[in-house]
Amino acid sequence: MKTKLQVVKVGGRLLEDKVLLPRILKAFASLSAPKILVHGGGNKASEMESKLGLQPRMIGGRRITSEESLDVVVMVYAGLLNKSIVAGLQALDCNAIGLCGADGSLIKARKRPVMDLDFGFVGDVTSVHGKHMSALLHADFSPILCALTHDGKGQLLNTNADTIATEVAIAMSEYFDVELKYCLDLPGVMEDPEDQDTLFPELDESGYRKLKENGVIQGGMLPKLDNCFHALKQGVRGIRIGNSDIISDTSKPHTFLKL
Amino acid sequence: MKTKLQVVKVGGRLLEDKVLLPRILKAFASLSAPKILVHGGGNKASEMESKLGLQPRMIGGRRITSEESLDVVVMVYAGLLNKSIVAGLQALDCNAIGLCGADGSLIKARKRPVMDLDFGFVGDVTSVHGKHMSALLHADFSPILCALTHDGKGQLLNTNADTIATEVAIAMSEYFDVELKYCLDLPGVMEDPEDQDTLFPELDESGYRKLKENGVIQGGMLPKLDNCFHALKQGVRGIRIGNSDIISDTSKPHTFLKL
Repeated sequence: MKTKLQVVKVGGRLLEDKVLLPRILKAFASLSAPKILVHGGGNKASEMESKLGLQPRMIGGRRITSEESLDVVVMVYAGLLNKSIVAGLQALDCNAIGLCGADGSLIKARKRPVMDLDFGFVGDVTSVHGKHMSALLHADFSPILCALTHDGKGQLLNTNADTIATEVAIAMSEYFDVELKYCLDLPGVMEDPEDQDTLFPELDESGYRKLKENGVIQGGMLPKLDNCFHALKQGVRGIRIGNSDIISDTSKPHTFLKL
Repeated sequence: MKTKLQVVKVGGRLLEDKVLLPRILKAFASLSAPKILVHGGGNKASEMESKLGLQPRMIGGRRITSEESLDVVVMVYAGLLNKSIVAGLQALDCNAIGLCGADGSLIKARKRPVMDLDFGFVGDVTSVHGKHMSALLHADFSPILCALTHDGKGQLLNTNADTIATEVAIAMSEYFDVELKYCLDLPGVMEDPEDQDTLFPELDESGYRKLKENGVIQGGMLPKLDNCFHALKQGVRGIRIGNSDIISDTSKPHTFLKL
């Protein structure tokens, strides 16, 4: 039987909440190892771009990443956010190690080809180095991954944190029994985000398809769920979507996804 | 017999040189493992502070690190510089992993007490986690360390890169046969920095003391050499000071230090 591995994805907005952040770190630190945290940080990057006189450009929630904008993203994701999280976790006796996809060549990507739109230095994940990641986990480190990859030729690339979380979860399923937890500022997948009673406690793929066709689930939740069902098909054992309470307590309301 | 470990310290100024940087990365990548790179980056941090409307404040070559200034230092050292080096080394098949002292709690420090001067968030190294560093080296990672530490209570601290290099070299001497190489923009310790012929190919501690007393060696070289002789006494096997040529070729002119 494989050892259990928990992959927790936390959105940038949650990390910027000064009340939530310590709770998130405490919850993650309380999980028994092995575990991986994947974090975003888009808002903070936009803020820093503005401070530096750059104009953040987003299309469909994705950042158009110029050379200058990549520098900011690298500074904010791999520097400011990643190292603050690591220092906070170490204070809680969690042996965190903060990394991007270039470190140990953990996550390789290909610069997104220019089609209708040039996203700039944005990468689509091509491979996860499961062996290197396992070596870190077996040495009792808890990797804290920011949303950056590299192309293996020296170029860093800005990469969607949700995609990193699912691709890491998929790759690690070869070595571990992987559970993936997506933490949002919502208690899960809901028909009406304003109404707690419309939360789906469970969602399977055929159910999701119907809700998608009927337009019940829309917007940013769609690529997230598409990613998730893809991951379940690729061997990830379980996926939960909810707010940060579910990091350490799965009895709290959330959406459990199954095929 | 212990395995050989090379610790290479490269100053920020060398890394900012667009011609030198690829040569430095190539030389480091060519070293047989295990190896550790320690880098500075003060100039780049000052540049970023200015861009963000902060006024860099240096006293005796040390940065007065306010809260805002610490954020910049973390972004530049652990983000921009560290990850560019890592991506560059990975492109050369060197299994680099970019870290600060908080990662794996590798380097702990104490916030410098306020005496005549308040340096702000500046740390003096108190311990190096040799076991965690060894675990990384034994798993075939090459740690790339930036000049940041943590206090173990969640606070990141700006720390002199030379000190990090010597403290890491000393701590790792328990596990490895350590050689430390300091790369400067000079070919070594010189009587007259303008005259190549005044280079000291070898320097022992009594010789150094005399040169120090006579005022032949001055300024920034003094704390560097004090650190170095301290490290030799603490078990570091050999220390070389020179320009970046000595990373891979010790037949090039440089200063070899001995007790």
